[in-house]
Amino acid sequence: IEEQDDKELKSLFKEYHYADIAEILDELNQDEAVYVIKLLDSETTSDVLMELDEDIREKVLRNLSAKEIAEEIEELDTDDAADMISELPEERQEEVISNIEDAEHKAEIKELLAYDEDTAGGLMAKELVKVYETWTVAGCMRRIRGQAKDVTRVHSIYVVDKEDKLIGRLSLKDLITAKSDQKIAEISNSNVDWVHVKDDVEDVAKIMQKYDLEAIPVVDENQTLLGRITIDDIVDVIREEADKDYQLAAGISQDVEADDSILELTKARLPWLVLGLFGGLGSVFIMKGFEHIMSTVPSLFFYTPLIAAMAGNVGVQSSAIIVQGLANDSVKGSLLNRLLKEIGLSLINGLALALLVILFGFIIGQDTVESVAIAVSMMSVIVVAALIGTFVPIILDKRGIDPAIATGPFITTSNDILGIYLFFVLAGLIIGF
Amino acid sequence: IEEQDDKELKSLFKEYHYADIAEILDELNQDEAVYVIKLLDSETTSDVLMELDEDIREKVLRNLSAKEIAEEIEELDTDDAADMISELPEERQEEVISNIEDAEHKAEIKELLAYDEDTAGGLMAKELVKVYETWTVAGCMRRIRGQAKDVTRVHSIYVVDKEDKLIGRLSLKDLITAKSDQKIAEISNSNVDWVHVKDDVEDVAKIMQKYDLEAIPVVDENQTLLGRITIDDIVDVIREEADKDYQLAAGISQDVEADDSILELTKARLPWLVLGLFGGLGSVFIMKGFEHIMSTVPSLFFYTPLIAAMAGNVGVQSSAIIVQGLANDSVKGSLLNRLLKEIGLSLINGLALALLVILFGFIIGQDTVESVAIAVSMMSVIVVAALIGTFVPIILDKRGIDPAIATGPFITTSNDILGIYLFFVLAGLIIGF
Repeated sequence: IEEQDDKELKSLFKEYHYADIAEILDELNQDEAVYVIKLLDSETTSDVLMELDEDIREKVLRNLSAKEIAEEIEELDTDDAADMISELPEERQEEVISNIEDAEHKAEIKELLAYDEDTAGGLMAKELVKVYETWTVAGCMRRIRGQAKDVTRVHSIYVVDKEDKLIGRLSLKDLITAKSDQKIAEISNSNVDWVHVKDDVEDVAKIMQKYDLEAIPVVDENQTLLGRITIDDIVDVIREEADKDYQLAAGISQDVEADDSILELTKARLPWLVLGLFGGLGSVFIMKGFEHIMSTVPSLFFYTPLIAAMAGNVGVQSSAIIVQGLANDSVKGSLLNRLLKEIGLSLINGLALALLVILFGFIIGQDTVESVAIAVSMMSVIVVAALIGTFVPIILDKRGIDPAIATGPFITTSNDILGIYLFFVLAGLIIGF
Repeated sequence: IEEQDDKELKSLFKEYHYADIAEILDELNQDEAVYVIKLLDSETTSDVLMELDEDIREKVLRNLSAKEIAEEIEELDTDDAADMISELPEERQEEVISNIEDAEHKAEIKELLAYDEDTAGGLMAKELVKVYETWTVAGCMRRIRGQAKDVTRVHSIYVVDKEDKLIGRLSLKDLITAKSDQKIAEISNSNVDWVHVKDDVEDVAKIMQKYDLEAIPVVDENQTLLGRITIDDIVDVIREEADKDYQLAAGISQDVEADDSILELTKARLPWLVLGLFGGLGSVFIMKGFEHIMSTVPSLFFYTPLIAAMAGNVGVQSSAIIVQGLANDSVKGSLLNRLLKEIGLSLINGLALALLVILFGFIIGQDTVESVAIAVSMMSVIVVAALIGTFVPIILDKRGIDPAIATGPFITTSNDILGIYLFFVLAGLIIGF
C-alpha cells in the first residue's frame, strides 16, 4: 500500500473510523505514519492523533510544525486539546498556543492547562450546553441549536442563574416533552450533582460510578459553572488506576507495555528485583547466624523456601484485599475488630497448613518433634505475615500514601526476611538449641 | 434513629439519593434494613435494592413476599430486573415472574433471563428509543415523547426498517436541529456500531471504549434490533474484570471483600496457600536430595530463599505484563521476537543482579568460586523464570483459557521449585560435586 498512491489511500482511510486508523498507524513506522497523517483531512487527523499511542503521537507531532499542530488543536474539544499541548516540550507549547486562531478556544485551553492533571479541572472540557433559568423552553431550544454545534454530545443541559452559578440541570428529553412557553426554572431539576474544580479525579470517578452519571458539571468555590466531565474520560481514569495497582502488585514501577523497549522495561522492573535481592541477601545473613545447627537439624534449612513462600503469599493476599477495600471505600469498622479478624483468619489457614506439614513429615519419616516445631513456627509466621500485610497498607493510607505500593515485592521481601528469622527462633525454642 | 419514628425517617430518607440510602442500609443489621425498605416508596425501594451489596440484598429479598418483589421489579429497567431475578433461588424466580402484572415487561424479562450473563444479551436492556426510517421528524418527535417515558436516559435513537432491522442511528441533537418535515432516512447516520447478542461482554467493553460510545445497540443474526447496552453497565464490567485479574494475581480465587466473613475469606485464600505449600514441600524434597553437599558448601542452602524469591518475582513481572497486554490486545509480533526480547531483558536484569551477588559475596568474605557459581546459577534461573512467566499466559490464551490464572501463586510456585532445582544443578556443575 505504501507506494505513494495518495488517492487510493485517501479513499481507503475515508471508510475507517478514526480509532481504527490510529490502530493501523500504531503499527507503521514513524515516516509512514507522518505520511498518512498528512494525507487525511484535518478533522479526522485530530481525532486520529488523540487515539494514537502516546509515544507514537509524540514522534508524529515532532514532525509537524507549530502551525500544523495548532490547526489540529482547533478541531479538538478543549479537554483533548489541552492534553495534547501538555504533552509537548515546554518551548513548543507556547509556540503552538500562539498559533491558535480562535481566541475563545485559545483562552479556554490556556485555562485548562493551568489545572493540575489529577484534578477535576485537568479532566474537564469547556464544551457544554448552558441555559439561564429565566429563559422559556422555546427560546432555550433556539439557543441550544446554536450551542450544541460545538458540543459533540449533549448529555445534560446545565441551568445557571444570571451570575453563571449552577442551580440545576435539564435533559434534552425534559425539554422535548415540555410545553414551549414554560420557563426553564419550572421544568429544571435543582437536584444536580457537581464536583469542585480542585477535586481529585479518583473521587470524581467514585461519585460518577456511585450515582451512574454520564456527565458531571465542574464548579469553582463560588458555584460558578466552569466545565463538565464526561464518562468516557472517567472510564480511562478507572482503567489507568486499575492498571497501576496491578502493576505495583506485580512489581512494575512504571506504566509499561509488553511492546515497550528493553531499556524501558528494565527501568520499570529492575528496581523491584534489586529490592527483592536485598531481601534475599538479608535471609542469607540470618541463616548464616544459625549455621551451627546445620549439622544437628538440617531439615530446618530445607524448609526455608517454603516459609518464605508462605509468608510472601499470605502477605500479598492480605494486602491485596485491604488495598482493594480502601480503593472502594469498603473498609469499615474499628482497627481492633480487623486485628482480631485477621488473627482468626490466619490461625484457621495456618492450622490447616500446619496439619499438612505434620502429615508430610510423617510420610517422609521425619522426626516428630522437628515436624511439630516446623509446623508451629510456620503457623506463627503466617499470622505475623497476615498482620503485616493488613496493617502496612492501612497505615500508609492513613498517612496519605498510596497503599498500593505496599503490595507485591515490598510486602513479599519484608515478610520473607522476618518470616525466616521468626521461623528459626521459634523452631529453636521448641526443639531447644 | 431506630425508635420506629416512621414519619421522621420517611422525610429524612426523602432527601437522600438512592445510592446513599443503599450505603446506609449496608451498615444496618438485617431487620433494620428490611424495616427501612418497607417504609420507602416503591420507586425508591427498587433503586435502593439494586444498589445494595449482593449479600445484603439477598437477605432483604428473603424477607419480602414474591408479590412484594414483583412490585419492585415492575419499577426497574428490564436489565436490572433480570439481574435481580437471576439472583433469587430457582423456585422463587418462577413465583416472582408470575406475579409481574405488566405482560410486556414480563415477556421482556423472560427473554433477558434466557441469555448467558457473560454475553451482550445478558447485559442489555430492552428499553430504547426506536424510530422507523419512513417517519418524518415531526411524527418522530411525537412518538419519542411517548417512548422516552420508559427510558431513563435517551442516548441514541435507533433507526430501523419495517422488519425491525437496525439501519442507522440519530441523536436527539440531530432531531432538534432538523426541519420538522424531513424524513428520518434523510437525517439519520447509517454508520452505526452494533454488537451481536451472543458477543462476549469483554469484547463489548473493548468496542465501547475504543470508539468512546455511551450506548451500543444489540442485534441478532438477522440484524434485528433486540436491545441496547449503556456505558454505566460497561464501567461495572471493566471494574469487575480488573478486580478479578488483580485478585488472581494476589492469589485470591473468589470475589471477596475485606468485610466478608472469615469462612468466605478462607475459602478464597486457602486453596492458593495449599498450592504454595505443595510447592514448598517440593523444594524440601529437592534440597533433601542435595543433603550430601551440606557439609562442603553450606552457603548454597543459605541462598535458596533468595533464588526462590527472584524466580517468583521475575515470573510475576513477566506474566503481569503479558496478561495486561493480552487484555488490551496490545501484544503483537511473532513469538520468536518475543522470545529473543524476553531473553535479552532477563539477561540484562540477571547480569546486574549477579554482579550485586558477587559483590555481596566479596564483602562477607565468601569463597569466590562459590559466589560466581551462585551468581551465574541465579542468572540462569532468572532467564528461565522470565520465559515461563511470558509463555505460560500466551499458551493459555491461545487455548482459550483466561491467562490471568497463570499470574500470582501459580507462576510463583512452579518457578520456586524449578528455580531451586536448577540452582543446585548448575551450581553443582560449576563448583563440581
